[in-house]
Amino acid sequence: MAPIRNARVLFSSVPKDFPVPGETTVYDASQTIDIDTVPLNGGFLIKTLVLSVDPYFRGRMREPKAESYSFSFPLGEPLDGYGVGKIIRSEDPAFPAGKYVYGPSLPHQEYSVLSSNPDSDTMFIIEKDPKLPWTAFVGAAGMPGQTAYMAWKEYSNAKKGEIAFVSTGAGPVGSMVIQLAKRDGLRVIACAGSDEKVQFMKAIGADVAFNYKTTDTREVLKKEGPIDIYWDNVGGEILDAALEFTAVYGRFLICGMISGYNTGLKGIKNLALAYAKSITLHGILVLRLFSKYKDEFYATVPPLLTSGEIKYKEDVSRGLETVGDVILAVQEGRNNGKAVVIVADE
Amino acid sequence: MAPIRNARVLFSSVPKDFPVPGETTVYDASQTIDIDTVPLNGGFLIKTLVLSVDPYFRGRMREPKAESYSFSFPLGEPLDGYGVGKIIRSEDPAFPAGKYVYGPSLPHQEYSVLSSNPDSDTMFIIEKDPKLPWTAFVGAAGMPGQTAYMAWKEYSNAKKGEIAFVSTGAGPVGSMVIQLAKRDGLRVIACAGSDEKVQFMKAIGADVAFNYKTTDTREVLKKEGPIDIYWDNVGGEILDAALEFTAVYGRFLICGMISGYNTGLKGIKNLALAYAKSITLHGILVLRLFSKYKDEFYATVPPLLTSGEIKYKEDVSRGLETVGDVILAVQEGRNNGKAVVIVADE
Repeated sequence: MAPIRNARVLFSSVPKDFPVPGETTVYDASQTIDIDTVPLNGGFLIKTLVLSVDPYFRGRMREPKAESYSFSFPLGEPLDGYGVGKIIRSEDPAFPAGKYVYGPSLPHQEYSVLSSNPDSDTMFIIEKDPKLPWTAFVGAAGMPGQTAYMAWKEYSNAKKGEIAFVSTGAGPVGSMVIQLAKRDGLRVIACAGSDEKVQFMKAIGADVAFNYKTTDTREVLKKEGPIDIYWDNVGGEILDAALEFTAVYGRFLICGMISGYNTGLKGIKNLALAYAKSITLHGILVLRLFSKYKDEFYATVPPLLTSGEIKYKEDVSRGLETVGDVILAVQEGRNNGKAVVIVADE
Repeated sequence: MAPIRNARVLFSSVPKDFPVPGETTVYDASQTIDIDTVPLNGGFLIKTLVLSVDPYFRGRMREPKAESYSFSFPLGEPLDGYGVGKIIRSEDPAFPAGKYVYGPSLPHQEYSVLSSNPDSDTMFIIEKDPKLPWTAFVGAAGMPGQTAYMAWKEYSNAKKGEIAFVSTGAGPVGSMVIQLAKRDGLRVIACAGSDEKVQFMKAIGADVAFNYKTTDTREVLKKEGPIDIYWDNVGGEILDAALEFTAVYGRFLICGMISGYNTGLKGIKNLALAYAKSITLHGILVLRLFSKYKDEFYATVPPLLTSGEIKYKEDVSRGLETVGDVILAVQEGRNNGKAVVIVADE
């Protein structure tokens, strides 16, 4: 077969604050690939089906020398992230042609040659579920859902009747946390940044849902708290408010701080309340919980999604050329549901 | 017997920033007591022997309406705190005359009528140890030593060969933490605010000891870290530095934030590293660990103090009239060792 287009999305410059589509990332359709002859070097060739765009992308859009928990995107190279691909050709018996692969570092390009790492269980064959679209496997049944499920199991110590507060409750992590908390018999307070998101949070069971842009978080927590568990995706003033209105022995699950990703974090002022109230704060990174909960997660969550017992919402775009816009939308909180890019149909 | 002086130290006004001896607290020798006839109302009369002056006093010197983990000192009333008294007369069979009582809320006056609370185990009869002065029972063998011992046991998850960093390492809590960490086989980095304190920290076993006022904490931790455990008594920039140079799965024991008690806390900027590094932060309040570890503590620590296996340092003053100065010295970090006031000999 003749070479075909192999479009990709390149990381082209470090953003000053918010990412700029077409400038900090560039869609590049100039390359081609011969999928019949490209050397595999013991690995396998995938056709990329879906790619996830997540808040943590911003942290990877940095100078390579700045240290962090995640690898920086290499300048001039394709972005990479969670995704699902179909294996087209393979020299790796663990990843045979015809199967589907899920992994955390799929390049943002239409076709890629990958090699497996025998020391890691983060890229693996994933079975097609006739009742779930591939997009769900990078959302509610993927990393965001796993973050919520695994950290809730590991750290929440949730007890029936307690009160949980969830920030970014309409996002893929927060909406899963709301529903896990409800299933555990908790009362749930949740916030997000638009009235549409507030409606969604109510629809999935939040007892109290509010728009933090138009409602004072402190007033809500003062009235509805004190809270026992706080799931933090935002940092900043909402984290400070949560510290203020937490009960003794509160548990804080610190998952992300998107309030500061683009414009710098505000200092947290109320951390002294941690000892006053014997609060414990757990920093969460799902990769470090993955091996422990992987099998339990895949046995539990996808069936709850297909049965509708756990609901999820996706904001789906089509085509790699949309990735830059989607990255910005996620940083600005304009996406309405888990941001996923469908790169190709099977 | 005729009435005798019953001097006391009153909380007289809320400090603006640092406490002002003679203004925010006042020594008052105008009252008398007839120790033979004062009504006991089912309680007991003590002669106060030693009183502890601790950093947390500043938090109690506030307007009564401001909520906190500790009761505010009532304006116009005597201060109260940890101390030891001798029981002179008693109508309470659990606290008989001739015995000694230890408690967290002994009034700062020479004689006091107290009543026991059957629901609380925080005030109790304490046996005299011929080898330990009473001052030790409000320091290394009292609340500060208990804070260090109980929280280290509960939260440090210390493993031989790990690295611990301790702030205010020359104080009664920090110096106990240093020695517990060394006994567990850790390498210990410790800081304090004077060269004399640095010498003491070295003498009790700190592998690296530095004066944070003349040495850059970040430089020390960059060279000697990353740390696995951080014991925080200060908050502010040192906590931020510790977050920066902590290893994955670091444990933070948040015990106090004296850097902000008098002049307001600086916001903590690096808390986002909590999820990047899967750090857990435990807020500590010794009263909430007390029942669990009380017996173990008294069986373990006083013998280690008398044998010299654990060392401690006290900064002892005599007379209630010194309390105001001692409170200020503690807030300014000018005390050299555990601040204790001997109110009377037996």
